[in-house]
Amino acid sequence: LPTKLPNTGTTIFTVMSALAAEHGAVNLGQGFPDFGADPALLQLVTDAMAAGHNQYPPMTGVPALREAVAAKLNALYGAVYDAGSDITITAGGTQGLITALHACVGAGDEVLIIEPAYDSYDPAIRLAGAVPVGVPMTADYRIDWPAVRAAVTPRTRAIVINTPHNPSGRVATREDVLELERIAEAHDLFVISDEVYEHMVFDGAPHESVARRSALRERSFLVSSFGKTFHVTGWKVGFVAAPPALSAAFRRLHQYTVFTVHTPTQHALAAYLADPAPWQSLSGFYQAKRDAFRAALAATPLKLLPCEGTYFQTVDYSAVSDLNELDFARWLTTEVGVAAIPLSVFYQQPQERRHVRFCFAKRDETLAEAAKRLGRLA
Amino acid sequence: LPTKLPNTGTTIFTVMSALAAEHGAVNLGQGFPDFGADPALLQLVTDAMAAGHNQYPPMTGVPALREAVAAKLNALYGAVYDAGSDITITAGGTQGLITALHACVGAGDEVLIIEPAYDSYDPAIRLAGAVPVGVPMTADYRIDWPAVRAAVTPRTRAIVINTPHNPSGRVATREDVLELERIAEAHDLFVISDEVYEHMVFDGAPHESVARRSALRERSFLVSSFGKTFHVTGWKVGFVAAPPALSAAFRRLHQYTVFTVHTPTQHALAAYLADPAPWQSLSGFYQAKRDAFRAALAATPLKLLPCEGTYFQTVDYSAVSDLNELDFARWLTTEVGVAAIPLSVFYQQPQERRHVRFCFAKRDETLAEAAKRLGRLA
Ligand SMILES: CSCCC(=O)C(=O)O
Ligand SMILES: CSCCC(=O)C(=O)O
Repeated sequence: LPTKLPNTGTTIFTVMSALAAEHGAVNLGQGFPDFGADPALLQLVTDAMAAGHNQYPPMTGVPALREAVAAKLNALYGAVYDAGSDITITAGGTQGLITALHACVGAGDEVLIIEPAYDSYDPAIRLAGAVPVGVPMTADYRIDWPAVRAAVTPRTRAIVINTPHNPSGRVATREDVLELERIAEAHDLFVISDEVYEHMVFDGAPHESVARRSALRERSFLVSSFGKTFHVTGWKVGFVAAPPALSAAFRRLHQYTVFTVHTPTQHALAAYLADPAPWQSLSGFYQAKRDAFRAALAATPLKLLPCEGTYFQTVDYSAVSDLNELDFARWLTTEVGVAAIPLSVFYQQPQERRHVRFCFAKRDETLAEAAKRLGRLA
Repeated sequence: LPTKLPNTGTTIFTVMSALAAEHGAVNLGQGFPDFGADPALLQLVTDAMAAGHNQYPPMTGVPALREAVAAKLNALYGAVYDAGSDITITAGGTQGLITALHACVGAGDEVLIIEPAYDSYDPAIRLAGAVPVGVPMTADYRIDWPAVRAAVTPRTRAIVINTPHNPSGRVATREDVLELERIAEAHDLFVISDEVYEHMVFDGAPHESVARRSALRERSFLVSSFGKTFHVTGWKVGFVAAPPALSAAFRRLHQYTVFTVHTPTQHALAAYLADPAPWQSLSGFYQAKRDAFRAALAATPLKLLPCEGTYFQTVDYSAVSDLNELDFARWLTTEVGVAAIPLSVFYQQPQERRHVRFCFAKRDETLAEAAKRLGRLA
C-alpha cells in the first residue's frame, strides 16, 4: 500500500506507554493525569445522557458549549469571538490542528513549525499537501525569531505556534507574540496557535493567547482542548476559535472529517464551564506539582531545565549517560523504571542534545516513586 | 481563503434539521432516532467514568472493544479479523470513511461511487486528492454493474460500496457482492465498504458484508458505526476492520487525525456487546416501524419505493408536485410540516426524478403525526 506518510511509524507516546506497561515503569512519558477527574463533571455527563442528549448535536457543536467558550475567551483575552460563527467543537486538539491546517494550506505551500514541535504537526502539514519547515528554538528553548524570519519564503503560507510549549515547558512572552504578529502581517501568514495548555502557566505569568491581539486573531486558528484542562484526556473534546471566514473554511472540512462530537460530553462541559474555579485553579495546582517534582529531583544528577507552563519537565541527563535521547528514554524505562519522552522525536533533524521530558500530571505518590527511582542514577 | 472544497456548502442534514426546527416540522430528514437509548448502555458509560476510564486509551482503541468487534464480525460473517492488528475504533463512521480513503487513494487516482451516494464520499475523496466518479444506480436503485465496469479506467484505484444503502433502502444481494469481487480483483481495486446499517436488514435477508468473502475482505476497509446500531448517533464511535497491511496504513493516518476516541464510551460498548440481543433484535425492531410507516402512507398519493434495509423510506412524489427534489423537500418542511431529504443531493449530476427520503427511526407517535400531515397531500 502506498502511503502519504512514508517515514511515519507509531507515535512515540504509544511506543513509550506500551514499553512502560510491559516493564512496570512509572509512566511519566505520555502526557495524561493518573488521578481522577472531578466527580461533578462525570455526573454532568450522566445527567446529559439521562436527559436524552445522545443524538447528533449541531455540526458545529452544542450551542451552550460554543457560547461558554466564546464568553470565556472574550473575558480572558479581550477577544470578540461570536459563538455562532467563530467557535467549532472538535474531537480533541489533534483533530482541530489537522483540520485547521487543511483549511488554510495546500500543495506547494510551506508551513513553519518551531522545533521541538509536537509530533502531529509535521504529518498533518504533509497530509494537507504542504511542506513543513522546522525552525529550531534557541539552546534554551526560546523561539529564535531571526531564524523564523530567515525561514520565510514566498511560498510560506502559515506558521504553527504552541504556548505554553510542549515539550520544553516554555511560555511565550508578550515580545514573542508581537514578533509573531509582525512576521504574520508582513508575509500574510495564517497562524495555527496550539494553546491546549492555556490554563497551566506558572509564577503569575500571563498566557499570551493570539486571541488578545486583534491583528493576530484575524488570521489565527486558536486550538484548545478540554481534556487537558479538566483531567479527562480520553474524552477527546476540544475547540477551534477563528474569525468567520476562517471558521467557515474550517467547518467545511470538519463536517466531512468527524461531522460532530460526543453530544453528552458537550452538554456536560457547557454546564461545567459555568463555574470558573476548575480552570482558574489549574495553574496553581500544577505549579505545586512542578515544585514538588523539581525539589525531589534536585538531589539527582539530572539537570532541571526551566518549566514555565504545561505539565512537562524537561531535564538534561548528560551527567548520567552518553546514550542518544531515544536510547536513553528506553533505558530509563526498562532499567530504571521511569518512562520519559526523548526530545529528538520532536525534530525533523534531531539535535545533539541529551534531553528527555517527564510528565508531572501525576499523583504525589507517583511523582515520589519516580523521583525515588531516578535517585538511583549516578 | 482558498478552499479544497470549492463547491461545498453546509450538509443537507444540517440545513434540513435547522429548517425543521424553525418551522416546527416533524423531522424525518436527518437520520437519527427521536427515542431514548437503552438505559443499561448509559449506565455502562457512567460506570466506566466512575472506574476511572477517562484518559487516553490505546491509539487503536480499547482492547476489549476491539476484541468484541472482531469476535462479532468473525462469528457473523465467517471472517478472520484479529483484534490486535485488524480493528481500529474511530470517531464515528464518517471519520472511518475519510481516513480509509486517505489511506488508499491519492493524487491522480479515481474512486468509483455508486449514486445516490452518501454526501461525505465525494468531498472525502477530493480531500484525499483523488477524483470521485459517480456511477448512477438503475432506475429501481440496484447497482448497475455494467455501468460500473464501463466506468473503470487504468486510474481507478478504489470503489465505495454501501449496503444496506442510504438513501434508497436497497440491500446488496449475493450476486452484487460476487460482481464486486470480480471487478475489484480484475482491476486490483481497494473497496471501502460502508456497512453502518449492517443490523437493519428486513424480511429475513442476509447482510452481504464484504467480510464474508476472503478475496474481498483482503482488499476492503469495512466501516461501521455503533451510533446507528445502539440509538446513540451523537456518540460518534465506530470502527474500521481491514487486514493488517490496510489497517497499518489506516492507523498511520488515524493517529494524526483524531489520535483516539472517547474512552468511557469505548469501555461501555465493549461491555454492552457481551449481550447479542440488542443488535440481533434491531432488524425486527425497524422492520415493524417500516411496516407501520408504509401502511400509514398507503392512503397518500406518495408512491412507496422498496425498503429492504436501513431506517430510510424513499417515496416518489410525482403525483403530488412537479417541484424539483430540493424545492419539494423545503416546501414539505415549511408548508406540510414534515422534513425530508431530497435525493438530488446524493448525485454529482442530479437525475430527473421526484424522490425524497424519510427517516423512520422515530417513535410510533412521531411517525403517526408525520403520516397525518402527509395525509393532507392531494
Ligand atoms: C495524544 S497522546 C500524547 C499526549 C501529549 O500531548 C503528549 O504527551 O505530549
Ligand atoms: C451525519 S448526519 C446525517 C445522518 C445520516 O447518516 C443521514 O441522515 O443520512
